[in-house]
Amino acid sequence: MPAQILSGKEVADRILADVAKEVDSLARSGCRPFLAVVRVGDDPASVAYVRGKRKDAARVGILSEEHTFPEETGQEDVCALIDRLNREEGVHGILVQLPLPPHIDEEAIIERIAPEKDVDGFHPVNVGRMVLGQETFLPCTPHGILMMLRHAGVEVRGRHVVVVGRSNIVGKPLANLLLQKREGGNATVTVCHTATPDIGSFTRQADIVVVAAGRPGVLTADMVREGAVVIDVGINRVEDPSSPRGYRLIGDVAFEEVARKASLITPVPGGVGLVTRAMLLWNTVRAARLAQERRGG
Amino acid sequence: MPAQILSGKEVADRILADVAKEVDSLARSGCRPFLAVVRVGDDPASVAYVRGKRKDAARVGILSEEHTFPEETGQEDVCALIDRLNREEGVHGILVQLPLPPHIDEEAIIERIAPEKDVDGFHPVNVGRMVLGQETFLPCTPHGILMMLRHAGVEVRGRHVVVVGRSNIVGKPLANLLLQKREGGNATVTVCHTATPDIGSFTRQADIVVVAAGRPGVLTADMVREGAVVIDVGINRVEDPSSPRGYRLIGDVAFEEVARKASLITPVPGGVGLVTRAMLLWNTVRAARLAQERRGG
Repeated sequence: MPAQILSGKEVADRILADVAKEVDSLARSGCRPFLAVVRVGDDPASVAYVRGKRKDAARVGILSEEHTFPEETGQEDVCALIDRLNREEGVHGILVQLPLPPHIDEEAIIERIAPEKDVDGFHPVNVGRMVLGQETFLPCTPHGILMMLRHAGVEVRGRHVVVVGRSNIVGKPLANLLLQKREGGNATVTVCHTATPDIGSFTRQADIVVVAAGRPGVLTADMVREGAVVIDVGINRVEDPSSPRGYRLIGDVAFEEVARKASLITPVPGGVGLVTRAMLLWNTVRAARLAQERRGG
Repeated sequence: MPAQILSGKEVADRILADVAKEVDSLARSGCRPFLAVVRVGDDPASVAYVRGKRKDAARVGILSEEHTFPEETGQEDVCALIDRLNREEGVHGILVQLPLPPHIDEEAIIERIAPEKDVDGFHPVNVGRMVLGQETFLPCTPHGILMMLRHAGVEVRGRHVVVVGRSNIVGKPLANLLLQKREGGNATVTVCHTATPDIGSFTRQADIVVVAAGRPGVLTADMVREGAVVIDVGINRVEDPSSPRGYRLIGDVAFEEVARKASLITPVPGGVGLVTRAMLLWNTVRAARLAQERRGG
């Protein structure tokens, strides 16, 4: 039986509806959630991502502004802007679009953001709080994956989840979230990666497989057991002369063949990416609410 | 063939010799490593632990002082002391002995310690840096386990390590360290815990099993494959009328039977605990060296 498709759009729409409601309620009490986006250089992908994020924000009533620097800008200038945004009461979330040009120390920039405005959840103190099981901003992709599983009624407690990939923005935080002792956690988690000799020997045992390897088609049907849940985090461009853009997007999963074996699978595009985008706004609203609480509102 | 015993004393002695050399070299350049220990209440185990830590410190030439508060001390008083120790240039490491009395917010106290003096590696920003693969203070037990494996010539790269337990001080940080993309890492890691239905089905597949469950004898011979490496992090008191103290210490591993099947095993006592203690001093010396570098020494 072919897998059911777990649509990112459906989950994202539901999250965005909740976010919009919360924005309304905050706005009525005098607090309009506000996201500041910082971009350095003219990488076309970054330009497009930022445009998309601001459009999403506008759609739910979140205000945003964009600060752009030329490619050759120095570390100090970016830091000075972040310091100013940290101080500005009306700014609730700060997002620095990555990657930054190679002459800029990305780690230092991320640590410069005030943790309570770190809506990407990339600041080490927020990463640490997440690992320790404390309340904090969760990074958008792993958080989005948890939302999708919950939306689909997939219980992770006591199930074996195999995560393929150990990036700082997906694999590592996702593994840490899944094994927490709380609702939405309690999974037995295995992390595989480029140094794993036989990834299939692990994924074949999984109730749930999450692939965030960044390589197209790495998860094939022979690597999945009948009835598994498959979450595809990859977004890869492959040449496609038949497309007007000359390329199309595919995931890390060999979708056609795996979909014949899995019970539930996320598509690419239209899967995890859409929910990831929604979680950024979720975090921004959370930042605004916390700021309001701190001011005693 | 019975397992080889991986002695914690041997590894700890070697680490302490290195630490003592480094203390000497720092002292000659005018910087004597200094550890401040904070203790609240009179829990006998805490008293004993602190005594042991200070004795270890003295043995390698590290100065230490102990600050004790009565059980009923409030949050603010402990915070005030930590603030003062944070400011004192001559204090390189600050250790707050856990657990604290229930009326004190442990998380807040740990976050109060200046990250550059957090020699336990418990501050969320240091936990986050560790997870992200940055240089930082590593928590003593998982760091000690990596040292033991290296000392014994056990390569973890590409091996399957199963960690039983997901505590904030052992299981979680160890799993995160083992999967990092660097020397001493690159293992495929599975984390099992109380919500895992059949822990044996995972440990039987492991090249290396680390048990940090806090329950005596949870790892039995039928849960281990022939030739596995077994690291026992547990320290449990069991009644023993034949002992002068009325109890003896045992690990989480059913030692006798597992030792007949494993290739290498750590004993309890005399295993991971000794190396854990050494790593605290390693971190203290590192803190002193970094402080000296910051002052341009």
